[in-house]
Amino acid sequence: MNIKINDNFTHIKQTYLFSEIGARVRKYSEENPDKRIIRMGIGDVTLPLPGFVADAYSKAALEMGIKETFRGYPPEYGYDFLRDAVSLHYAGLGVSCDPETIFISDGAKSDIGNFPDILGKNPVVIPDPVYPVYVDSNLMNGNDIYYVNGNPDNGFLPGPEELSDLKLEGAIIYICSPNNPTGATYTREGLGKWVDYAIATGSLIIYDSAYEAFITTDDTPHSIYELPGAYECAVEICSFSKFAGFTGVRCGWTVIPSSLRAGTVKLIDLWKRRQATKFNGVSYPVQRAAAAALSEEGTKACLENIAYYRRNASSLAGLLDEKGIYYTGGKNSPYIWMMCPEGTDSWSFFDKLLHEVQIVGTPGEGFGKNGEGFFRLTAFGSYEDTTEACERLNGIL
Amino acid sequence: MNIKINDNFTHIKQTYLFSEIGARVRKYSEENPDKRIIRMGIGDVTLPLPGFVADAYSKAALEMGIKETFRGYPPEYGYDFLRDAVSLHYAGLGVSCDPETIFISDGAKSDIGNFPDILGKNPVVIPDPVYPVYVDSNLMNGNDIYYVNGNPDNGFLPGPEELSDLKLEGAIIYICSPNNPTGATYTREGLGKWVDYAIATGSLIIYDSAYEAFITTDDTPHSIYELPGAYECAVEICSFSKFAGFTGVRCGWTVIPSSLRAGTVKLIDLWKRRQATKFNGVSYPVQRAAAAALSEEGTKACLENIAYYRRNASSLAGLLDEKGIYYTGGKNSPYIWMMCPEGTDSWSFFDKLLHEVQIVGTPGEGFGKNGEGFFRLTAFGSYEDTTEACERLNGIL
Repeated sequence: MNIKINDNFTHIKQTYLFSEIGARVRKYSEENPDKRIIRMGIGDVTLPLPGFVADAYSKAALEMGIKETFRGYPPEYGYDFLRDAVSLHYAGLGVSCDPETIFISDGAKSDIGNFPDILGKNPVVIPDPVYPVYVDSNLMNGNDIYYVNGNPDNGFLPGPEELSDLKLEGAIIYICSPNNPTGATYTREGLGKWVDYAIATGSLIIYDSAYEAFITTDDTPHSIYELPGAYECAVEICSFSKFAGFTGVRCGWTVIPSSLRAGTVKLIDLWKRRQATKFNGVSYPVQRAAAAALSEEGTKACLENIAYYRRNASSLAGLLDEKGIYYTGGKNSPYIWMMCPEGTDSWSFFDKLLHEVQIVGTPGEGFGKNGEGFFRLTAFGSYEDTTEACERLNGIL
Repeated sequence: MNIKINDNFTHIKQTYLFSEIGARVRKYSEENPDKRIIRMGIGDVTLPLPGFVADAYSKAALEMGIKETFRGYPPEYGYDFLRDAVSLHYAGLGVSCDPETIFISDGAKSDIGNFPDILGKNPVVIPDPVYPVYVDSNLMNGNDIYYVNGNPDNGFLPGPEELSDLKLEGAIIYICSPNNPTGATYTREGLGKWVDYAIATGSLIIYDSAYEAFITTDDTPHSIYELPGAYECAVEICSFSKFAGFTGVRCGWTVIPSSLRAGTVKLIDLWKRRQATKFNGVSYPVQRAAAAALSEEGTKACLENIAYYRRNASSLAGLLDEKGIYYTGGKNSPYIWMMCPEGTDSWSFFDKLLHEVQIVGTPGEGFGKNGEGFFRLTAFGSYEDTTEACERLNGIL
C-alpha cells in the first residue's frame, strides 16, 4: 500500500522488558525443572474479587438476559449511580468532585493513553523511572519529553526544582503517587510544590492515583484535589484495579474539573467529545461491580485484601531494613524499589536472584535510565510465597 | 492554563442530532401526556441477551470471585479461546483469518475511532450519508476528507467511479455494509470494485461489517475477505453488538491481515503497539459471553433474535412497497432508509410523524448532506410496536 503511517511509531523503542524476563525464566525453568520459582515481578493482583463484589457483577450479568432488566448502550460517560458513588468516595477523602466531572472508563491505562488525543504540542514532563505508558503515548503523538530525574538524593520524588533551568510554559506534567515502579509517595508539601509550579507556568498536571488505596500515612494526599489550587491545574486518573482487584474487570475513571481551561476552551468539553466519538461506555455489570466495591460492605472487603498485600510489603521492607539496603516504597504501596547490592546492575541482579534463590523480580532499568542499579519487587503474591521469598533473600543479601 | 489543545477539535461540528430529537420528543410528550409514542429512532437492540449467553457471562463473573478461577489482566489482544472462536466464525463464512490477526476490543466504535492513531496524513474517503464516527475521528486527526455521494441513482451504494476525477493515491477508504444508516448492502460485484480500486491506488479499506449477521441474500459478502485481493488492502472491524445484542456488553474485534504493509512496516505491528500502550484488554467474563454467543447453541439463539428484528424490518418494507415509496435496507439490515414523501425535508417529516402518528425516527440530514429528504426507521423495537407503527403509518403515507 502507498498509505502513510504515523511515523512517530517508528521512533518508539520496543520494550522487551517483560518478554525478556519471560524468556530468561523459561530457559531457567526448562534447565531446572525441579526448582520452584517465586514470581514477584508482575504488577497484577492475585486475590479474587471480594464475594460481595463478584455477586453484584454476576447478578447484573444475569439481568442482561432478562427483558425487563436488559440494558443496551451504556451512557458514554458512565451510569449516574457509579459517577455518584465515585463522587461520594471523594467526599470521604474530604474532596469535592461533581459527578458531572467524573468520567467512567475501561481503565486508567486507556485514559492515560488516550488523553494526549485532546492536547496539542506542548512540552511534556515525565519523571524517570516511570510507568512506560506516559512516555509511549506521548511519543506516538510526536511530543517532546523532558525527564525529571528520580534518584536516592530526592528519594525518587523529583520536584519542579529539577526543571528550574528550562523555563517551561504550558507543560503537561505526569505525576504518579504512590509511584509505579518506585512505591515512593509525595507528601502534601512535595505535591504542593508541583501544583504551585503548574499554576505559575500555566501547566496541566495529569495525576495518576491508581495506588491511592495503599496509602496509610497521614501527610500523604490520596487525591491531588486535597491541594489548594489543584482544581485549576490538574486532571486525576484513578482505577478500580488496585483498590478492588479489577485488573481483569477493567474499570477506571478520570476527573476533569470544569474550571480547567486552555484559553476559552474547557478541557472537559474536549474529553466529552473524544469519549463520545471514540468510546462507547463501560458495561452495566462492570459498573454495578464497581459500585458494589465502593459501598460500605465492598470497601471493607477491598481494604482487607489491601491489608493482605500490605503485610507482604512490610515483610519485604523489614528484611531490607535489617540488611541496611536502600529502598523506597513498601509502606504506602505494593511495590518495593530496592538498590541492587554492591553496585550490581539491574539485569545481573535479576539473574542472580533467578539462579540462586529462584525469585523473579523486575530490573529497574526497564523503567528508565535512572532505574539502572535498582530492582522492583511486588507484594501481590501470596503470604506464604512472600514469607518464603524473604527467607530465601535473607540467605543471599 | 497556557497549554495548547488539539485545535482540530474546534473544527468539528457539534452533532445535535440525538439531543435535538430528544428535546422535540420531550416537548411533545409534555404537551400530550396521553399519547403513546413509538420509538423507532435509535440503533440499539431491545431483546435481552440469550439465556445461554447471559449464563456464561454470569458464571464467568462468579469465577472472578474464586481464588482458583480468578483472572487478572487479560491478554491485550484477547484470550486465545475467543480469537480462535472468531477465526472459526470466519471459517464458517468460507474465509480464512488466522487468530493471530484478530484483535478483541471493547467494541467496533472504539476500534474505528482509534484506528487513525496508527496512520499518517492520507486522503480519507467516506461515503455520505454515513456513521458519524468515521468523519469525526478523522477530523480530530486533521485529515482531509473526500465524500462519495450515496443517492437513489446508485441505490446509496456509491462506487469508486465517484472518485475518478480525483486520482487519489494511498487513500483510507471507509465502507460499511450492510450500511448504517441506509441499510444498503454491496453485492460481491459492487464491493469488488472498491477492492480493485484500493489495490490499483495503493489504498487501505476500513471495512465495517457490524451488521453482517443480518445478511440473507446470496450475492452479498459477509466479510470483505470473501473478495479476491482483500487481504492486500483491507482491515475488517466487526462487533458482537448487533449479532449477539452486546450493545451494553461491549465487545468487538478487528482483523488486520499480516500481509498489509505500508512500505516495509506491517500494519498489524503498529496496531499491536497501539493496543499494548493505550488499551488493557477486555474482561474475561465478557470474552466468555462472546465465545458463548459464537458457540452452536449461542449462535442459534442469536439468530433467532435477528430473525425477530428482521420480521419487523419486513413489515416496514412491505408497507413502503405497497405505498410505492422509495427506500433502501429492510432486507439485509435492521434499518429502513426511506425517502420523505412529497419532497418533504427530513426534520419536517420528523415533526409530521411525531405530531400526527407519534412515531419517532431519525432525520436523514443528521447523517450527511445526502441524507436530506430521507428518514431512518429501525426494526429494533418490539413486534407489537412495529405492527402498530405500520398501521399508524399506513394512515398517513
